[in-house]
Amino acid sequence: MENGSRNVLKPMDSEQLREYGHRMVDFIADYYKTIESFPVLSQVQPGYLHNLLPDSAPDHPETVEQVLDDVKTKILPGVTHWQSPNFFAYYPSNSSVAGFLGEMLSAGLGIVGFSWVTSPAATELEMIVLDWLAKLLNLPEQFLSKGNGGGVIQGSASEAVLVVMIAARDKVLRSVGKNSLGKLVVYSSEQTHSALQKACQIAGIHPENCRVLKADSSTNYAMRPELLQEAVSRDLEAGLIPFFLCGNVGTTSSTAVDPLGALGKIAKSNDMWFHVDAAYAGSACICPEYRQYIDGVETTDSFNMNAHKWFLTNFDCSLLWVKDQYALTEALSTNPEFLKNKASQADLVVDYKDWQIPLGRRFRSLKLWMVLRLYGAETLKNYIRNHIKLAKDLEQLVSQDPNFEVITPRIFALVCFRMVPTDDNDEKKCNRRNLELLEAVNSSGKLFISHTALSGKIVLRCAIGAPLTEEKHVKETWKVIQEKASYLLPK
Amino acid sequence: MENGSRNVLKPMDSEQLREYGHRMVDFIADYYKTIESFPVLSQVQPGYLHNLLPDSAPDHPETVEQVLDDVKTKILPGVTHWQSPNFFAYYPSNSSVAGFLGEMLSAGLGIVGFSWVTSPAATELEMIVLDWLAKLLNLPEQFLSKGNGGGVIQGSASEAVLVVMIAARDKVLRSVGKNSLGKLVVYSSEQTHSALQKACQIAGIHPENCRVLKADSSTNYAMRPELLQEAVSRDLEAGLIPFFLCGNVGTTSSTAVDPLGALGKIAKSNDMWFHVDAAYAGSACICPEYRQYIDGVETTDSFNMNAHKWFLTNFDCSLLWVKDQYALTEALSTNPEFLKNKASQADLVVDYKDWQIPLGRRFRSLKLWMVLRLYGAETLKNYIRNHIKLAKDLEQLVSQDPNFEVITPRIFALVCFRMVPTDDNDEKKCNRRNLELLEAVNSSGKLFISHTALSGKIVLRCAIGAPLTEEKHVKETWKVIQEKASYLLPK
Repeated sequence: MENGSRNVLKPMDSEQLREYGHRMVDFIADYYKTIESFPVLSQVQPGYLHNLLPDSAPDHPETVEQVLDDVKTKILPGVTHWQSPNFFAYYPSNSSVAGFLGEMLSAGLGIVGFSWVTSPAATELEMIVLDWLAKLLNLPEQFLSKGNGGGVIQGSASEAVLVVMIAARDKVLRSVGKNSLGKLVVYSSEQTHSALQKACQIAGIHPENCRVLKADSSTNYAMRPELLQEAVSRDLEAGLIPFFLCGNVGTTSSTAVDPLGALGKIAKSNDMWFHVDAAYAGSACICPEYRQYIDGVETTDSFNMNAHKWFLTNFDCSLLWVKDQYALTEALSTNPEFLKNKASQADLVVDYKDWQIPLGRRFRSLKLWMVLRLYGAETLKNYIRNHIKLAKDLEQLVSQDPNFEVITPRIFALVCFRMVPTDDNDEKKCNRRNLELLEAVNSSGKLFISHTALSGKIVLRCAIGAPLTEEKHVKETWKVIQEKASYLLPK
Repeated sequence: MENGSRNVLKPMDSEQLREYGHRMVDFIADYYKTIESFPVLSQVQPGYLHNLLPDSAPDHPETVEQVLDDVKTKILPGVTHWQSPNFFAYYPSNSSVAGFLGEMLSAGLGIVGFSWVTSPAATELEMIVLDWLAKLLNLPEQFLSKGNGGGVIQGSASEAVLVVMIAARDKVLRSVGKNSLGKLVVYSSEQTHSALQKACQIAGIHPENCRVLKADSSTNYAMRPELLQEAVSRDLEAGLIPFFLCGNVGTTSSTAVDPLGALGKIAKSNDMWFHVDAAYAGSACICPEYRQYIDGVETTDSFNMNAHKWFLTNFDCSLLWVKDQYALTEALSTNPEFLKNKASQADLVVDYKDWQIPLGRRFRSLKLWMVLRLYGAETLKNYIRNHIKLAKDLEQLVSQDPNFEVITPRIFALVCFRMVPTDDNDEKKCNRRNLELLEAVNSSGKLFISHTALSGKIVLRCAIGAPLTEEKHVKETWKVIQEKASYLLPK
């Protein structure tokens, strides 16, 4: 019975995969064709789906048609369209033709590459493409796979900073004793992504030992090395142990760039692990004219960039390079009998399971490899440059409108702006009005931008970086923002 | 230039996605059609790929044809074919037609669902399908999303046990003070997956406080509650704080099932968090006749099953249910300004970012939803039953051959066996011979099995669970094993 009928889906069958795979390709291609017809930010209310779906799984098979119908009528209204050309919120999360093909192939092969032996190509291709990208970024040799260093694909920047923090923690605790955990201190600017706070929570760093250094408009929200030096000195005097510094190239709020070289010097002279989060802006640094923003990277111990943000590689694909792979593997290795194999035991290979939190891992290097090959480095550079140019144009439009101000000088493709305070200069009122503007433009469905706070000011963020975004989308977006603002201005 | 030529791939373009997506579907369908022609375990040598690929990324675009050619000639030889019907190593990692379609759709939509607002459907569908599965497993009500509990998709069982351990750690440290980390004790049987050890390392549990309780053939490698009680009492007397117990339903080595009810009683009376790892065997428990193996689950605090193992859902899809979601969110929440939004601030919604390590997350519930709908619960039960029947048959074949013995009674679809010691009863020699047999069968390319050690004996593991595996594959596998064994037997 089970496989008796032509209409019943088998667990796996090459011809059914072909038939329904083609149908799904068409469904997705049609989605992209019509993507501008959807409200960018989903307009549903909390709990909307509960009433649209049954309370339990069906006993018997339904058809692909039924499911695709439900995707159209029930799921898509609840989707916020990250791939829309009018998605400008947070940071982009690129899907591309090449990245999509890579995801398909990875799902199709269905391997789990925790150890080299479980699919040598998965480990080796990952090493190779991370070397490729390290070279495009002109990272120092120590980050390449031929020595003690190397790159690895993590799921997210959060996992990247967590694994290096664990590595750094265990390295220092091995020398000072594990009961000294309460003395370890972490440093970063207040502009650092919440992923660092989360890593500290997980690693058990005491909250009172997390130094969150002030960064304000005087440095465009970059960390000030003298504040770091002061904090480190104070902690040393108090008998604490500075052990981890997180620098930023392109902060989440406003793309601030910390001065890596100066920070690295302080980190080095205090034996601290220096990690750099370039999750967003790292992509831009493959262009020679933007490479300067990671100058000083040679002083770091680890460097992270998310290919899944602004590098045409579908989520998830967070690239982490370390100079000392053994710091990672000493902290994260396990060696159960059921995973032992000749190649690993003979130490001939890398087993990426010991470079990350999970055991299992998908064949994620395929999509990055396909992006690099199907676009090529020059196209990727021009892709980045085009978004930066569009952002430059928007920055100019904003600065020409007396009702608005650019809050921090644009560096990459994020424009931070707000409606200016009106006559009474009431900052609170101004913040409220900008949040109202945010709500008004996003509930229009025409575009999606997000916000942040800088020095107490509510700031609107327009991050240009979706693969489909063109000049016309940015212009239209600015028109919608101006129009919605006009209703909020005092008459 | 960039988009001028028809042959140049654009970052995103619906018609190019359609054209090349179709080509990739055919490539993957052809792969499944010919999957039995590949050596199951890749036969390449360490470093093989390095010489086959260039040292750096291309400057200019290459074609999809060139890449697919390279996949065929350079990547596939380095792939270990997890989806082959002759893959019996570790545990299965199912890819199915439905799961593959779900992966495609998820990659196509390209959303990042960290907060409800970033795609309400992603959060809500996940809550709904985890409720569906909780009901299929007949989990207690407290694991459903309507109260304080609920389910969440993690990337792996390693992440599942890590997040609940962090939740449990912080919960107890909030009451005893964070300087007591060195007093916290974790309990498990020695058959527990290395993921627990890794979680302990990351969470900073002192290695000498990890109680690894003996489990031997007298209980078929299940944990003995009296050993747990003794260990807990000893630790309490020594002023330590028992806080976390990990039970197993279907251990990695031999599918041992710990007695949940008895263990749960001890956990409860000592205020410990009780987590159950049913990563592999959980799937079987949707069948009424196997539900008994999770009897006592009502005494647990968290329960984990990997839909990406034996439930037709492509990796990664690790299901975690907790009774107290607030224990998770208290440990893992962060609330930066740039992620604030009305729905979250009003506490109207679940934000899964606070239930997991990473911030970003893929739309993984789609594939589980499609598996449940396109196959239906009855088909899924029969899928499991069929593999168990095949394993039963193999168990019988093994037990009928005087040169072999079944090492532990088969419970699910894993058969643990070995060549028996010969006349001199030398266990070392016997172990060596079994490893030689392992090497011989795996290097034949005809099948892939793995091994473990139980009470010092090297044991061969044949885990039946690939979607394409049929009776003929199991029979042929046994023939190959017998044949290879015949060369190793003393004349």
